Amino acid sequence: MPVPVPAAGQVLVRLEASGICHTDIHAANGDWPVKPTPPFVPGHEGVGVIDAVGRGIDPARVGTRVAVPWLGHACGECSYCVSGWETLCEQQRNTGYSVDGCYAEHTVADARYAVPVPDGVSSMDAAPLTCAGVTTYKAVKVAAVRSAERVAVFGIGGLGHLALQYARIAGGFTVAVDVEDDKLALARDLGADHTVNARATDPVAAIAELGGVDVAIATAASPRSFEQAFASLRRGGRLVCVGLPADGVLPVPVFDLVLKGITVVGSIVGTRQDLAEVFACTPPAAPGSSPSPASSTTSTAPSPKS
Amino acid sequence: MPVPVPAAGQVLVRLEASGICHTDIHAANGDWPVKPTPPFVPGHEGVGVIDAVGRGIDPARVGTRVAVPWLGHACGECSYCVSGWETLCEQQRNTGYSVDGCYAEHTVADARYAVPVPDGVSSMDAAPLTCAGVTTYKAVKVAAVRSAERVAVFGIGGLGHLALQYARIAGGFTVAVDVEDDKLALARDLGADHTVNARATDPVAAIAELGGVDVAIATAASPRSFEQAFASLRRGGRLVCVGLPADGVLPVPVFDLVLKGITVVGSIVGTRQDLAEVFACTPPAAPGSSPSPASSTTSTAPSPKS
Amino acid sequence: MPVPVPAAGQVLVRLEASGICHTDIHAANGDWPVKPTPPFVPGHEGVGVIDAVGRGIDPARVGTRVAVPWLGHACGECSYCVSGWETLCEQQRNTGYSVDGCYAEHTVADARYAVPVPDGVSSMDAAPLTCAGVTTYKAVKVAAVRSAERVAVFGIGGLGHLALQYARIAGGFTVAVDVEDDKLALARDLGADHTVNARATDPVAAIAELGGVDVAIATAASPRSFEQAFASLRRGGRLVCVGLPADGVLPVPVFDLVLKGITVVGSIVGTRQDLAEVFACTPPAAPGSSPSPASSTTSTAPSPKS
Amino acid sequence: MPVPVPAAGQVLVRLEASGICHTDIHAANGDWPVKPTPPFVPGHEGVGVIDAVGRGIDPARVGTRVAVPWLGHACGECSYCVSGWETLCEQQRNTGYSVDGCYAEHTVADARYAVPVPDGVSSMDAAPLTCAGVTTYKAVKVAAVRSAERVAVFGIGGLGHLALQYARIAGGFTVAVDVEDDKLALARDLGADHTVNARATDPVAAIAELGGVDVAIATAASPRSFEQAFASLRRGGRLVCVGLPADGVLPVPVFDLVLKGITVVGSIVGTRQDLAEVFACTPPAAPGSSPSPASSTTSTAPSPKS
Repeated sequence: MPVPVPAAGQVLVRLEASGICHTDIHAANGDWPVKPTPPFVPGHEGVGVIDAVGRGIDPARVGTRVAVPWLGHACGECSYCVSGWETLCEQQRNTGYSVDGCYAEHTVADARYAVPVPDGVSSMDAAPLTCAGVTTYKAVKVAAVRSAERVAVFGIGGLGHLALQYARIAGGFTVAVDVEDDKLALARDLGADHTVNARATDPVAAIAELGGVDVAIATAASPRSFEQAFASLRRGGRLVCVGLPADGVLPVPVFDLVLKGITVVGSIVGTRQDLAEVFACTPPAAPGSSPSPASSTTSTAPSPKS
Repeated sequence: MPVPVPAAGQVLVRLEASGICHTDIHAANGDWPVKPTPPFVPGHEGVGVIDAVGRGIDPARVGTRVAVPWLGHACGECSYCVSGWETLCEQQRNTGYSVDGCYAEHTVADARYAVPVPDGVSSMDAAPLTCAGVTTYKAVKVAAVRSAERVAVFGIGGLGHLALQYARIAGGFTVAVDVEDDKLALARDLGADHTVNARATDPVAAIAELGGVDVAIATAASPRSFEQAFASLRRGGRLVCVGLPADGVLPVPVFDLVLKGITVVGSIVGTRQDLAEVFACTPPAAPGSSPSPASSTTSTAPSPKS
Repeated sequence: MPVPVPAAGQVLVRLEASGICHTDIHAANGDWPVKPTPPFVPGHEGVGVIDAVGRGIDPARVGTRVAVPWLGHACGECSYCVSGWETLCEQQRNTGYSVDGCYAEHTVADARYAVPVPDGVSSMDAAPLTCAGVTTYKAVKVAAVRSAERVAVFGIGGLGHLALQYARIAGGFTVAVDVEDDKLALARDLGADHTVNARATDPVAAIAELGGVDVAIATAASPRSFEQAFASLRRGGRLVCVGLPADGVLPVPVFDLVLKGITVVGSIVGTRQDLAEVFACTPPAAPGSSPSPASSTTSTAPSPKS
Repeated sequence: MPVPVPAAGQVLVRLEASGICHTDIHAANGDWPVKPTPPFVPGHEGVGVIDAVGRGIDPARVGTRVAVPWLGHACGECSYCVSGWETLCEQQRNTGYSVDGCYAEHTVADARYAVPVPDGVSSMDAAPLTCAGVTTYKAVKVAAVRSAERVAVFGIGGLGHLALQYARIAGGFTVAVDVEDDKLALARDLGADHTVNARATDPVAAIAELGGVDVAIATAASPRSFEQAFASLRRGGRLVCVGLPADGVLPVPVFDLVLKGITVVGSIVGTRQDLAEVFACTPPAAPGSSPSPASSTTSTAPSPKS
């Protein structure tokens, strides 16, 4: 493919790293009701250096690094955009889906939605944070996790191992639930207070023994894990769905929902501001380290607000 | 039955009015997993005059009117009670269910959970407000309805016709959905901005034409109405369940929940403070009037805070 | 002055009405630290018809009516803009101050920040709502006034008589405080539950007899009224400042602030979304009526969300 | 003094540790408008073992450890108690002030307001957490500090060095401000991201270079530090006052308050639930360690909810 030319308001990004998300596979397979129009370039976890700018963009941005996330463009004028919820904009364009994405040497991006990557964060680290990171960070924000709350993360995969870390940063005590022992070992390394192998132990019973959780974050595709996440909640608890169950449906027992005053909420990716906060929470990469969003003891406290 | 004697901390209430709630019928039939122990006295919408007080209660309360609600007692010490959520207390006792209730000439009640009824509110009005009123008032509070938001109420029965009024008091524009024309006529009398007969018109389509709703309150028992309430929401919308669907389950489409950032929440009755606010919002009864919680034009602004 | 030509992204507005705000006088006198550069055109409550559009704007907008508010432009990219707080954007341009405003036959405005005026709202009504309306509406929103809360409005002038109405729409019981009897008569006409003439009666004592207020909104310039507004609060109460005291300083007694858990917050104008909500709350104008933002009984429920 | 006898609902506590708070000195000196009645026993940071129980209290509590905080009793019925704000109850009794406190071998306490101390927390650690800990924990909660926010703590004394830690637990980046280098060294040891010696450097300027702070917590008695804390805030920022300035007054510049959308809020101690959360956040004491509320890496995640 030819190198694209940045239009007015766009930047041309030479990609250094590009993560892969399950959505990219769904996009390639045309799994979802609204399908992308082939041929198209998937990839919405791209990080690279600005090589050129379109009309209206400050040429001083050339040479700086940016992340190119799923939210490639929003209208900036609707009730969602004006109220801090650009991720719900109905006019949004999505990178690697409705517009070409990052599985390429170069891509063009709306300059306003390309988020600067701080020097201390490597492109390899920044790439998965650009979608998996911001999605789980936002899930923790939507759940409004507070200090001393207990948070269960169901599924310690690409999303869950990050959700766990963001829940800890927000002050939560964490319970990691998975069916693979190596995932649970990773969870312990990342600081999980409790781990449950759902193949060996009923997680609902194990969590009930702890007193239940204030928040459950469902990141695995297993429909059963969604129901377990719901059933693990204390009264007043909140279930945040970021993954999708394989069959698409969560059967909510309304008697419990009402009697226990439970909240079930869906969360999708995050705004540019959320992504800036994700990068701010990310410690400088040590050589060869895998993506680890943050540990409050080593944080260098870059500024997420400009 | 003999007139009960108030124990320490209790009051003896001579009942003047006692509402009926569907829960009373479920109690009598033993429909729910945790059953009351027969023989017992149902009724948790009782209003009456204090005839005697137990040890530790100021005798000056004799002669005053109180409401005796579903929440007959809570522990006052657990994390829920201390945090403003006594309705979730796991040690709670429920009037007309785990303790004798109000279908009687006299009942005894924990003095701390019996809520004073202001002079301007008749006992006939106060009775249904004691459960149906506070339940729908709280649902609107849990939904955090704000000025200029659009609120759909599904089912304009004993709960719904009150939910509609509380949504209006909170500044919402309202859409009433029912399958009976006389219910919709009542809704219009109560100030509904729009009405939809779900037998004649698809409410999801009708509400979509308005732009969707910010909040939907599900009060009807029809499972279909719960699904319609969910589907009527705008992005970022909130579905509050106060009724129970006949089959007990709401199948939540998680793709929509996530993509649209939707919240589903259960709400159960309300606290003593919520009930005091309900009475504060209730205008003085005109002779022969039916329960009408409030109209901001005639409110007399009694004090809900003591 | 010549008719201005709309640049890219702008609209040319032929003004039909233009309100006056005290800020315009401060602008003309250069009262504030950051001064406008003369010559300039004041006025930021302009309402008119789009006569022409600049490059990039849909010509179909010609002939529609818009309001041109104080927030003439914001960057759309900073943490404030992305988080729903464009009114705090540090790159904002202000109509009638840093850019030419509405005391003119024509003005140009950034199309994204010009807010459509619904057909039912006359230009004469819309003009003062464009600043005084949205400012007080937002103050009520920032105060998070809920049903059954008691709200005192200090000063029933251009701001206060609107604040009173928005507090009522949000479900509040209201106390109007002023030193002029005709203002208090207006407040009663607008539905105030209580009125206090601060010249005749100590408002702090009068409000204490009611039990104090949950929210006080300070709109008058008298330093004394700010202190009285603070002192009128119940424990846990919130003081919202929208006006400025003549001497610029509110001496907060920290012992009371801490012991009573009080909040003091400043609020400035509102976003485009807030203004759309203001217009949605405004009933259709009757001939000759004065600006009245809303009465929930006559509202036609236009759609504030697009 | 004779060993007191626990009345109904009380416990007799044999004290093991008792902290000292500046309030105790104010109490002894009669510095405040409402004075305690001599002779009285000060001390409201007491921790000890239950030796006996009064009528109505489960004898199984004998032998367990509890903390006896400032909030010795609240009415349990007013709008504050029912809404989660028992610390604002107007009928509250305060330990070591209106009722005898903990500078004694034994004290009696209302069993409902004596908070269990987990095994892992030593009495020496628990004592200062019972007031200084819960006060600063609550200040961070009232400020609603979120991940990636920047928080300045003014004064790194008994309150401030704890506020700093709770702000970090909640995910904040921290700036410590004091006039003593050893305090700032302690702050760095506790993980502060930045430190400012206000004697050597203007903290307002130093913090402005970082981009300002989202939250400032004022714990020092210097009136100047309150003003600096206010001036350090970004737009939309929140100043939480927990200390009292020596002259009792914070002169708030209303122009800045309004233009920047700033919030100033007072916070006083915390509820029983807040104190349980404080203990839950406290890591097991190492021998000889000084009070350190928590480090997320070593937390043992006890259960704060019962």
